[in-house]
Amino acid sequence: MNYNLSQIPERFEKPRQKGLTMVMDKGLSLRQVDDFLEVAGEYTDLVKLGWATSYVTPNLKEKLAIYKSAGIPVYFGGTLFEAFYIRGQVDEYRRVLDQYGMEYAEISDGSVEMNSDVKCEYIRQLSQQVTVLSEVGSKDEAKIIPPYKWIKLMRMELEAGAWKVIGEAREGGNVGLFRSSGEVRQGLVEEILTEISEENIIWEAPQKSQQVWFVKLVGANVNVGNIAPNEVISLETIRLGLRGDTFDHFLTQ
Amino acid sequence: MNYNLSQIPERFEKPRQKGLTMVMDKGLSLRQVDDFLEVAGEYTDLVKLGWATSYVTPNLKEKLAIYKSAGIPVYFGGTLFEAFYIRGQVDEYRRVLDQYGMEYAEISDGSVEMNSDVKCEYIRQLSQQVTVLSEVGSKDEAKIIPPYKWIKLMRMELEAGAWKVIGEAREGGNVGLFRSSGEVRQGLVEEILTEISEENIIWEAPQKSQQVWFVKLVGANVNVGNIAPNEVISLETIRLGLRGDTFDHFLTQ
Amino acid sequence: MNYNLSQIPERFEKPRQKGLTMVMDKGLSLRQVDDFLEVAGEYTDLVKLGWATSYVTPNLKEKLAIYKSAGIPVYFGGTLFEAFYIRGQVDEYRRVLDQYGMEYAEISDGSVEMNSDVKCEYIRQLSQQVTVLSEVGSKDEAKIIPPYKWIKLMRMELEAGAWKVIGEAREGGNVGLFRSSGEVRQGLVEEILTEISEENIIWEAPQKSQQVWFVKLVGANVNVGNIAPNEVISLETIRLGLRGDTFDHFLTQ
Repeated sequence: MNYNLSQIPERFEKPRQKGLTMVMDKGLSLRQVDDFLEVAGEYTDLVKLGWATSYVTPNLKEKLAIYKSAGIPVYFGGTLFEAFYIRGQVDEYRRVLDQYGMEYAEISDGSVEMNSDVKCEYIRQLSQQVTVLSEVGSKDEAKIIPPYKWIKLMRMELEAGAWKVIGEAREGGNVGLFRSSGEVRQGLVEEILTEISEENIIWEAPQKSQQVWFVKLVGANVNVGNIAPNEVISLETIRLGLRGDTFDHFLTQ
Repeated sequence: MNYNLSQIPERFEKPRQKGLTMVMDKGLSLRQVDDFLEVAGEYTDLVKLGWATSYVTPNLKEKLAIYKSAGIPVYFGGTLFEAFYIRGQVDEYRRVLDQYGMEYAEISDGSVEMNSDVKCEYIRQLSQQVTVLSEVGSKDEAKIIPPYKWIKLMRMELEAGAWKVIGEAREGGNVGLFRSSGEVRQGLVEEILTEISEENIIWEAPQKSQQVWFVKLVGANVNVGNIAPNEVISLETIRLGLRGDTFDHFLTQ
Repeated sequence: MNYNLSQIPERFEKPRQKGLTMVMDKGLSLRQVDDFLEVAGEYTDLVKLGWATSYVTPNLKEKLAIYKSAGIPVYFGGTLFEAFYIRGQVDEYRRVLDQYGMEYAEISDGSVEMNSDVKCEYIRQLSQQVTVLSEVGSKDEAKIIPPYKWIKLMRMELEAGAWKVIGEAREGGNVGLFRSSGEVRQGLVEEILTEISEENIIWEAPQKSQQVWFVKLVGANVNVGNIAPNEVISLETIRLGLRGDTFDHFLTQ
């Protein structure tokens, strides 16, 4: 850090197992990736190429190479898996992962109907090829999943081989874990945390108020995701009690 | 595209007459223009230098040269025409277009009162100098134009020589075609489309929900505008059914 | 300017004492700073490194050097002063200012309780080391300060040696001068202006509607702050009556 302040919560060093920041790249240019990494590379643990943006993004191989040389794992958004799945092309999806040298993949069912056994079978298969993140929650704001079912699904998917489970929120932060206003479904999150270890969950939390809420509930080292590239520095100050919203939270004296 | 997916709607190649994406540059640096073009040049058909930002933007000639060498037409926002008009300086405006080598221009009356015959006369004159886009709709949210009048104006302006007519929404997407909440005035759009060919209209639709609505109504190859440079990739995935919002829309099996 | 338009309000040249634009850098990369300065350097009078982002921003010295060579004063956000204050480390804060060659500093009490005499004493002390900006207003939206007290505090702080006083709004523009909806507390601002000279105040106004309101009330040369780097060009057009929102405001004929 650039100077010394007392009473700052400890953050783990990379590679972190806890306190992860997952950033969403929804179409950065190669130079914009460089800029993002200059500022936030140290604080970024995972990068998701949002939904199926990788289908239309130019210079995909070059972009993946930049992230690789910075030591930051990248994966394609879960919607891409679903796009292959709904077309009966999952085998081709697996070849695409190989072709691009992907070491991580996300399996989700936010836009499709998929039996949980089928989903777990895909997790099981794919986890022999890559590290799997699986996402729970629908992109349909009308589809409310009760807490006991979130817990059941998360547990099943972790047991099937998922490295982490992700709580769905979309880029906007207005479905799944959140109401359409962006407000956290607090009871849901608290109930999940009574049953699933916080280390195993990445909470999508693109809005500042959501990040603040999670840092206050879980601590500086909460795993959050869908962070915009230019908000990683802000998030880091929220984690450290150095933005107004969490200013008092870590003071011990 | 970077890999193969079935059941993807066809997009026309550039130069497109249909399926246009018009992007708003409201003050990019030269390098930011390069970055934008690297990622989205292939999907961008037109660039508007928003309202009168060209008055204060440094390196204007250099910026225009970059777009020109990328083969992407650029025009000054309609508010600039209006700023010259209200000052009685339209002749000077025409000289400015020449001085900067502009091949396109927008004529609008979003901030001024202008008789439709006068507006059509300007369209007629200017279309001998450049390709004219004309915009219908007020920037004043209190000024509601009934559908029959939108249709009448659009028809008159096309007949006067406008290449395309633009439906007004501003940078924010909260006037003209839209309510102040950003919600589409659906009846208006549908009524317009019964009388004016979709190919002749560019719908300003800066918000994601607006882009989704137009793609669902008109199809993958709808003409939309006022797209932020870093949202062109997202828009392209919406057009192709590769974002959650239009995920099911183009599936045929 | 790139062409001639009549009836454009006069803007002062740099270094301005009036008509200041204070921009918030909340984590730009070095190249992004270059891009920002290319486009908006001429219109930017002050840069604030938002809240305590300077604690975690890489390449801080290099960034400060770029701004310095562009002749634009930079200061650390007031929250950083408060972070040192609450930890009893104000002496260390003063050393940090020296260590980084800072010539400006902000003193605020948006996140801490501080007696106004204590605050003025800090202003007095620090103004012997650097040019001091002091900020009035709380970051807590529940804490409403009545107008007479805003005036009293601003007057005291200017007398204690503050170069300018800043009206608090946060990055979002939803506290202090503004309601949580972003709407201006108009009576408050008007009452302040009856007692404190407009030249001595910088109004934080990150939202476009807020900038428009201040330009209409005070004029083209109002001092505003917390402007996002990519909104400086837009602000400049609002100041000059070249965006729809102030289009009629400066027309004299």
